[in-house]
Amino acid sequence: MRPMPSEFEIIRRHFSRAAPSAMVGVGDDCALVRSKPGMTLAVTTDMLVEGTHFPAGSDACRLGHKSLAVSLSDLAAMGADPRWGLLSLALPAADDNWLSAFSEGFYSLAARYGVDLIGGDTTRGPLAISVTLIGEVPVELALRRDGALAGDDIWVSGSTGEAALALAALSGRIALAEPFISQCLARLETPEPRVELGGRLRGLAHSAIDVSDGLLADLGHILEMSGAGAEVSYELLPRAPAIASCDDAELVRECLAGGGDDYELLFTAPPARRADVDALSADLGLALTRIGSVVPGEAKTRLLDMQGNALALARSGFDHFR
Amino acid sequence: MRPMPSEFEIIRRHFSRAAPSAMVGVGDDCALVRSKPGMTLAVTTDMLVEGTHFPAGSDACRLGHKSLAVSLSDLAAMGADPRWGLLSLALPAADDNWLSAFSEGFYSLAARYGVDLIGGDTTRGPLAISVTLIGEVPVELALRRDGALAGDDIWVSGSTGEAALALAALSGRIALAEPFISQCLARLETPEPRVELGGRLRGLAHSAIDVSDGLLADLGHILEMSGAGAEVSYELLPRAPAIASCDDAELVRECLAGGGDDYELLFTAPPARRADVDALSADLGLALTRIGSVVPGEAKTRLLDMQGNALALARSGFDHFR
Repeated sequence: MRPMPSEFEIIRRHFSRAAPSAMVGVGDDCALVRSKPGMTLAVTTDMLVEGTHFPAGSDACRLGHKSLAVSLSDLAAMGADPRWGLLSLALPAADDNWLSAFSEGFYSLAARYGVDLIGGDTTRGPLAISVTLIGEVPVELALRRDGALAGDDIWVSGSTGEAALALAALSGRIALAEPFISQCLARLETPEPRVELGGRLRGLAHSAIDVSDGLLADLGHILEMSGAGAEVSYELLPRAPAIASCDDAELVRECLAGGGDDYELLFTAPPARRADVDALSADLGLALTRIGSVVPGEAKTRLLDMQGNALALARSGFDHFR
Repeated sequence: MRPMPSEFEIIRRHFSRAAPSAMVGVGDDCALVRSKPGMTLAVTTDMLVEGTHFPAGSDACRLGHKSLAVSLSDLAAMGADPRWGLLSLALPAADDNWLSAFSEGFYSLAARYGVDLIGGDTTRGPLAISVTLIGEVPVELALRRDGALAGDDIWVSGSTGEAALALAALSGRIALAEPFISQCLARLETPEPRVELGGRLRGLAHSAIDVSDGLLADLGHILEMSGAGAEVSYELLPRAPAIASCDDAELVRECLAGGGDDYELLFTAPPARRADVDALSADLGLALTRIGSVVPGEAKTRLLDMQGNALALARSGFDHFR
């Protein structure tokens, strides 16, 4: 039997791929990196914990992907170009197979978006994954939450609700047939951060956020920071095939508007730029759907049915402490 | 009874102090910050886990201090000026008193070293604390592990071994009287990162590392990266009063040379700069002790007694997976 690898061995074996953009990478007290002239740093951090964000026994490769994807999604929501990542892992044991799969999932996604892993920490403990990402963006073009203006269109990329529908299926609340269950699980376990979209929205969107807490909850964050309200047409919310196939109207509404874990971008832009948004959608091959408008008034969203009547929601966002 | 605060409430109540150096701080998808022209970013991350790094029920204020101190120590070892911090917390429950004490400990130390907290994450889970720090250093003056040269003096700041002696007392291996037990617990629970020393060693030290794994283990990291060996005189290792009072010679040796959790700086500098190091010590009011020399040859340390004979050590460094 091989001896259990040390924490230095873990880093050497699994987390020492080249970081060409770093002057000093993994292996010193700090990494040393330099930002491009004129660029501002965009910095974000997320922690995923077993039992809270994912169940025990989750696939390590997909976990490696997701733990990076959620932070990439934050950079995307800022319009920032990803540059550097740091990864801290608390692990119950130093399982070489698990580490190999996890690092494969992490590095594959990192390579696609030009992220160099420049530092980290490994320690023994209940499984927890903490990722910090640093990106770059020209400061005046950063997509902030506080830039929405009354009159702006509200747009959302892709579709929401499938990750939440996967959770509903896993918990036994509904039965979901193939191919829908696989589609929903893919959205839950290997979300695709909208990095390219974020970069292209610079100079086009007035405000942006990524949909991680749920569409209405995240729209609410924009409204609070911007000091405006919103009207959203429920029928306009984009529906993936799995959502369209589900005949539990109440669940569909919860998933679409309040599901969370979607990692789409929600953004606002002036109506004069509709053609530009449509052209961007065609260019990226990614649906960008206009779902409502920013309106003057208090920071609340009215979700409207086809007749313009307000709809209620049982649950509008995810909160780990509720 | 007050309702349990949400994760947004936790951040608003406890982690929203002003971050004047940030263009966008806590509250957007990313923080936005800009580095000074000509400076290189030094980035480090550390994770502390209950049951591994500290026992259950540890004082929250001291934990807030220590979780920042260990990362500040990494910046110090690079000669970097601290700038920005990110904090992720996994918490079993949203305990307002705990959070209040923790954030007080964190922010007090942050204020002393000019760290602005610009981002973070809170989630439910077994208690784990992940801190990422970003500092700045002129790249050509960064203190790296790979710069030691044969002939360099080896220096250590302050004294080592008290944190390990505190652990020996807590585990019942020895009895430690006042004031020694309090002194050792202070070193273990509220270590003082050598940030000022690190900055002043720019242009003076050839290499540096912070002593977190144990003096000989961390010296070993310098030797591996620099491709040299070392001779260290055991009798020259600086001894704090608690260590000097301990009559268990074996334990003293383990603590001094292999204890870990010391957060002193170990550095090498050319003999021609001895007077400069001594002047720096006087200026900072911090002992800087010359304990040996870098020698040509393989990356090993010979620990010598007064007669120049090699001493053996039962344990030379800390590893969470051993």
